[in-house]
Amino acid sequence: MELCMDLIQLAHGSGGRMMHQLIRDYFVPAFDLRTLNDSAVMDEPASGRIAITTDSYVISPLFFPGGDIGMLSVCGTVNDLSVSGARPLYLTAGFILEEGFPLKDLKKILASMTEASLKAGIRIVAGDTKVVDRGKGDGLFINTAGFGIIEDGISLSPFNITVGDRIVLSGSIGNHGISVMALRNGISFEPDILSDARPLNRLVERMLGITGNIRVMRDPTRGGLATTLKEFAHDSGLCMRISEGSVPVRPGVRGACELLGLDPLYIANEGILVAVVDRGDAEALVCEMRKTPEGAEAAIIGEVTEAPKRTVLLNTEIGGSRIIDMLSGDQLPRIC
Amino acid sequence: MELCMDLIQLAHGSGGRMMHQLIRDYFVPAFDLRTLNDSAVMDEPASGRIAITTDSYVISPLFFPGGDIGMLSVCGTVNDLSVSGARPLYLTAGFILEEGFPLKDLKKILASMTEASLKAGIRIVAGDTKVVDRGKGDGLFINTAGFGIIEDGISLSPFNITVGDRIVLSGSIGNHGISVMALRNGISFEPDILSDARPLNRLVERMLGITGNIRVMRDPTRGGLATTLKEFAHDSGLCMRISEGSVPVRPGVRGACELLGLDPLYIANEGILVAVVDRGDAEALVCEMRKTPEGAEAAIIGEVTEAPKRTVLLNTEIGGSRIIDMLSGDQLPRIC
Repeated sequence: MELCMDLIQLAHGSGGRMMHQLIRDYFVPAFDLRTLNDSAVMDEPASGRIAITTDSYVISPLFFPGGDIGMLSVCGTVNDLSVSGARPLYLTAGFILEEGFPLKDLKKILASMTEASLKAGIRIVAGDTKVVDRGKGDGLFINTAGFGIIEDGISLSPFNITVGDRIVLSGSIGNHGISVMALRNGISFEPDILSDARPLNRLVERMLGITGNIRVMRDPTRGGLATTLKEFAHDSGLCMRISEGSVPVRPGVRGACELLGLDPLYIANEGILVAVVDRGDAEALVCEMRKTPEGAEAAIIGEVTEAPKRTVLLNTEIGGSRIIDMLSGDQLPRIC
Repeated sequence: MELCMDLIQLAHGSGGRMMHQLIRDYFVPAFDLRTLNDSAVMDEPASGRIAITTDSYVISPLFFPGGDIGMLSVCGTVNDLSVSGARPLYLTAGFILEEGFPLKDLKKILASMTEASLKAGIRIVAGDTKVVDRGKGDGLFINTAGFGIIEDGISLSPFNITVGDRIVLSGSIGNHGISVMALRNGISFEPDILSDARPLNRLVERMLGITGNIRVMRDPTRGGLATTLKEFAHDSGLCMRISEGSVPVRPGVRGACELLGLDPLYIANEGILVAVVDRGDAEALVCEMRKTPEGAEAAIIGEVTEAPKRTVLLNTEIGGSRIIDMLSGDQLPRIC
């Protein structure tokens, strides 16, 4: 039986003593909150440009094979900064708790955030908690905002993409989306399909050290690889031509997609990135990426061509080709 | 009759075409989003330290006399930065929308955010939208994170507070909380009690220009003036001794508090600040603050004494004194 005192109450959001206790007992030990002032103050790095990003996390369920909303909320924002070419430094964390949420779950989620922060080498420097009435939320939502520095000389943008460039993927697709989807549908796999959620900043740092000719990077989360490539095609005005056989998909994910009638190209990922790179550097880059745990499955999956303009073309394994567009509707709601 | 196409649908959060359209049609025109990349990139200011803060806004109802959740989400975060002594520069905005939320309300709220940003002179540089199923949210929650610069030489902290310092309040208390509370309870006043929500960064800039002897500032939001003073007393180890008669409370708010059985000292504010300042500079500071619209009601409300330690003491108008503590429970849930 859960006692009332083990659950979030509206008064935990009131600004009074109960909120102060919640922050002191749960948030301060988990994060690097050196003061409870309204703003965190840090020394400014010596050079570079500032990168800022934000993401809210509303994934359902909160715990899934390979992770939970806490680690997701750190990794997702770290990765958004990383693929912009930034070195992530600081995160903020805002919590919207539903009245009745178990404090033991909050504790687990905060521990995951701490663990992910340590793994990524970043600091959570400011936080906020709000409580909404029972039935006006869904347990817990987290927003994180991230702050990082882009070193001088690094400028990634889809507008840099050039005909002949190679498209590099850092790992297999669909793991995150399928792990959550399987859980929601009560399907189990042997072995379990785990979410790929993980910080990519160390991989990105390594990649930027190998070549100065990366045009753009992005992490294909909501909307999957297809949507990210479509964005590249749209912004560059060129064609992203990928080969079906070269896109890594693990057998379990492939099987689950067939079972559920889903296309892995549209499934959300949380621990891979796609980069467009000068053709001369692609092989060496992939070779180096494969030496890292995050990049062990890295592959060149295609190239950039002049036409058809603003298009993603998939060369299928049976020799045909099809146009890949954005999904209009919703394949997997609340996947991140 | 509202058509389905006028309401938020789950697919608006999917990462696909509908989400791209929502961002293009609603968020890009409202904010200063120059790219739809995952991170915004800005030049770094030349000097100073970095201030970072975050707040989620879950106020109910979303629209209230004198403002709405949109302007609140900008002002609240601008003010958190300002009272830390920072010049606010950039905000991020994360939206959690409930399926079925009217797009026309979203439009109004975004327009308020734009207006408040212009008023404060800050830029919203990165955003995110998520959609949750009907019944798993409450229309709209907003998180904003803020980024600013604290110029060299400015260092505000309750640890700076010294015996003899004066306590300065920039305006009358209780306006925000009572405006929302009255609306919730279907009580109307003549004239309407309006929320005080507004950006305070220009007032703070002016204050910091007048004296280098401000010890600490804070905006007494959730938990009201009482909670903020209690935090000062706790951190400084000293006594904050205020005089009831000198704390500005507008007649409408005073009447409403009597009617509703509330203490204005605990009511949330969104457009005032409390500062502790060297006794020699207090008069001149208040005099200068009164020349601004945000500081028109500024007053010295008390002083810092040695004992009783870690205590807030209120000298009442009838000549007694009482100890002011933090509220344990919840006076007004979801006030910001």
